Amino acid sequence: MATSPAFRAGTPARNPFTPEDRRYMYEALALAARAGYRTHPNPQVGCVLVQGGEVVGRGYHRRRGEPHAEALALREAGPRARGATAYVTLEPCAHHGLTPPCADALVAAGVARVVAAMEDPDPRVRGRGFARLRQAGVRVDVGLLAEHAERLNRPWLHYKRTGRPYVLVKVATSLDGRIATRTGESRWISSEAARQEVHQVRDQSDAILIGLGTLLADDPRLTARAVRPGPLAFGWGLPRRLRNAPADAAPEDDPWQPRQPLRIVVDSHARTPSWARLFPAIVAVTPAAPADRIRELEAAGAEMLVLPPGPDGRVDLEALLAELGRREVVSVLAEGGGQLLGALLDRHLADGARLYLSPLFLGGGGAAAVGGEGAAHLAEVPRLARPYTRRLGRDLVVEGDIVYPTARGRQNCSPASSRARAP
Amino acid sequence: MATSPAFRAGTPARNPFTPEDRRYMYEALALAARAGYRTHPNPQVGCVLVQGGEVVGRGYHRRRGEPHAEALALREAGPRARGATAYVTLEPCAHHGLTPPCADALVAAGVARVVAAMEDPDPRVRGRGFARLRQAGVRVDVGLLAEHAERLNRPWLHYKRTGRPYVLVKVATSLDGRIATRTGESRWISSEAARQEVHQVRDQSDAILIGLGTLLADDPRLTARAVRPGPLAFGWGLPRRLRNAPADAAPEDDPWQPRQPLRIVVDSHARTPSWARLFPAIVAVTPAAPADRIRELEAAGAEMLVLPPGPDGRVDLEALLAELGRREVVSVLAEGGGQLLGALLDRHLADGARLYLSPLFLGGGGAAAVGGEGAAHLAEVPRLARPYTRRLGRDLVVEGDIVYPTARGRQNCSPASSRARAP
Repeated sequence: MATSPAFRAGTPARNPFTPEDRRYMYEALALAARAGYRTHPNPQVGCVLVQGGEVVGRGYHRRRGEPHAEALALREAGPRARGATAYVTLEPCAHHGLTPPCADALVAAGVARVVAAMEDPDPRVRGRGFARLRQAGVRVDVGLLAEHAERLNRPWLHYKRTGRPYVLVKVATSLDGRIATRTGESRWISSEAARQEVHQVRDQSDAILIGLGTLLADDPRLTARAVRPGPLAFGWGLPRRLRNAPADAAPEDDPWQPRQPLRIVVDSHARTPSWARLFPAIVAVTPAAPADRIRELEAAGAEMLVLPPGPDGRVDLEALLAELGRREVVSVLAEGGGQLLGALLDRHLADGARLYLSPLFLGGGGAAAVGGEGAAHLAEVPRLARPYTRRLGRDLVVEGDIVYPTARGRQNCSPASSRARAP
Repeated sequence: MATSPAFRAGTPARNPFTPEDRRYMYEALALAARAGYRTHPNPQVGCVLVQGGEVVGRGYHRRRGEPHAEALALREAGPRARGATAYVTLEPCAHHGLTPPCADALVAAGVARVVAAMEDPDPRVRGRGFARLRQAGVRVDVGLLAEHAERLNRPWLHYKRTGRPYVLVKVATSLDGRIATRTGESRWISSEAARQEVHQVRDQSDAILIGLGTLLADDPRLTARAVRPGPLAFGWGLPRRLRNAPADAAPEDDPWQPRQPLRIVVDSHARTPSWARLFPAIVAVTPAAPADRIRELEAAGAEMLVLPPGPDGRVDLEALLAELGRREVVSVLAEGGGQLLGALLDRHLADGARLYLSPLFLGGGGAAAVGGEGAAHLAEVPRLARPYTRRLGRDLVVEGDIVYPTARGRQNCSPASSRARAP
């Protein structure tokens, strides 16, 4: 079992958490994880209310506009919430959003103690929820299973801390890092199981990003065609039970339908054909894009996003991500091609990577999975802070947070990643 | 537990093996595995003699010229071999080599039953050992834990069946299939643990093969600088206890010294510098190599091997491997560079692969780990029959037998591989 930083820093005598606390928090995390990233733009949160050794209320936030986890748990508990302990995976909110503040509701219900996995980094909360609870005489203990809580909301926490969406780079590649044979054959390099999972990842991503080359080569629809919820797409490092929790929630969404992500093409000169199958979509161009092409694509169902060019004359990817952040896009799945993935790595804008490694060799004539410029020195190359691996069909999956060792660009500022980078 | 083909084919009633048989055979395999591929050009063989439920003799073949496993076990058992059961990992030999035939020795000692994991494919044996035992009234049961026995002697069995050495392709690469940054930095991409293991693999390989490019880029010594025996280098798929057995034997070789493999450079035009650190070595050239260079390299300590050119004018790798087979080279470790590894795959001459995947991205400007031409169609690309994965330091290791799906070239004819290829 992972230990939280609070736990680790304190002496055993100061650890405020019992084995029962851990068990209930784990249950709250498993509830939160059932949301399957459908809470956009909110975090996934779970809550368990315990009174006299018995669970009297459970709740998790399912989607924006629906009740928060605490509200659902309190509703189930009714009067039994008085004197209870609330286990929450994130600091209860203290501000009025679409729903009233959960901290106030917990106080009003007479909850005696709140155990929270972590503080909410949202500037409107950030400790205010805990403060309000403590002012009302509620005992508050923070930091139980904080690593799990970090991994549970990996994209959302990154978004709150940086203002940019979490960018997951997806690479489906051979063992020799290629995505096509020398004659250009590229379909079905990955196994059926891997292709199905990609559809589940799309369901859980707010947006999908591709480059023009991939559009021209594959003319992809980029829709999520998953038939059931997948494991948490951004949840590497979580115990299997937590990561696979979304499937538990499926019966509540009957018939279950995948969520369709925003589709975005990076196409500096607006060369996207108007018959592309991925429309409606956002096409990100530079001011150099011809006006008639922009009108033509708008007529075809595109939202044209004119962005300043980077030093290479192409769409400035940092500007694109900033704009997506302003639009409350929390997570982006970058699906290719090699040029776009390489550019994201070169600019230190890729936050995580998932590789579907197919156990075959495509050989020297094949197209590279990751292009771009690349780092000059080994000391500067992007690395996975900690690679997680698993089998999927006949493929291997390698996934993890990316860290950029030098100060050349921004650091990955997720505390979970920084911890993982320690020796 | 794996089941042997004999076991699988028969009905339960016909299975001649008891759980005790399996246990003793496993012990014989573990003994055999202790040899750590130092038996060249012989196979690794273990033997356990059991009399009345008690092990009365153990032996394994340590190296050429030393006694065979059966002889050692019989020596230990002495008169208690009479009426005993012998568990042997390979069919006992029936011919006079450097030592007398083991089948005769087992008969002479009065052994009542022989349980063998598999038949010896050596044309001088191939069933003759079993026949001789049966003629003498010894009960013989064959096929117990045959898969393990196959994996234990993977290179030797391949060599016996094809006349060519088993070629293991070693690739130390980034997640994007590259071996150097765009500025050419390539040292220490792999972790320290992976680099140590490579030295252990060299200790267990009969020969190391590199291309001229790698020699010029790295000027490697290609010596085995392992400080202790590694796991069986060609033993993927074996249970951990069998694979790690060589370390158990180390105290018997005190002080333990790594075995130095033959070093071979593929250098069609004899451009190897005479100051290269890997001398003495074999330099494989074509008749197009200048005579003065050949003389110069001979003076530097090279054995010059002039081979016919392939269609591309370079050294015909198939001819090279045939020549190495004639010299009783059982296993070859191909260490790079990308061009050589790609050519081996293109010619269907790579029999197994081990990748040390470092969790980093070198980007588009880096050198590719595997070059060559590559297959035109996905249906033809070389695949790992079954990829085995493990962590090693911060790296991932992927290893397995290579199969070539089409009839374009030779098939990998190891029965173990063919079985693994079945759905």
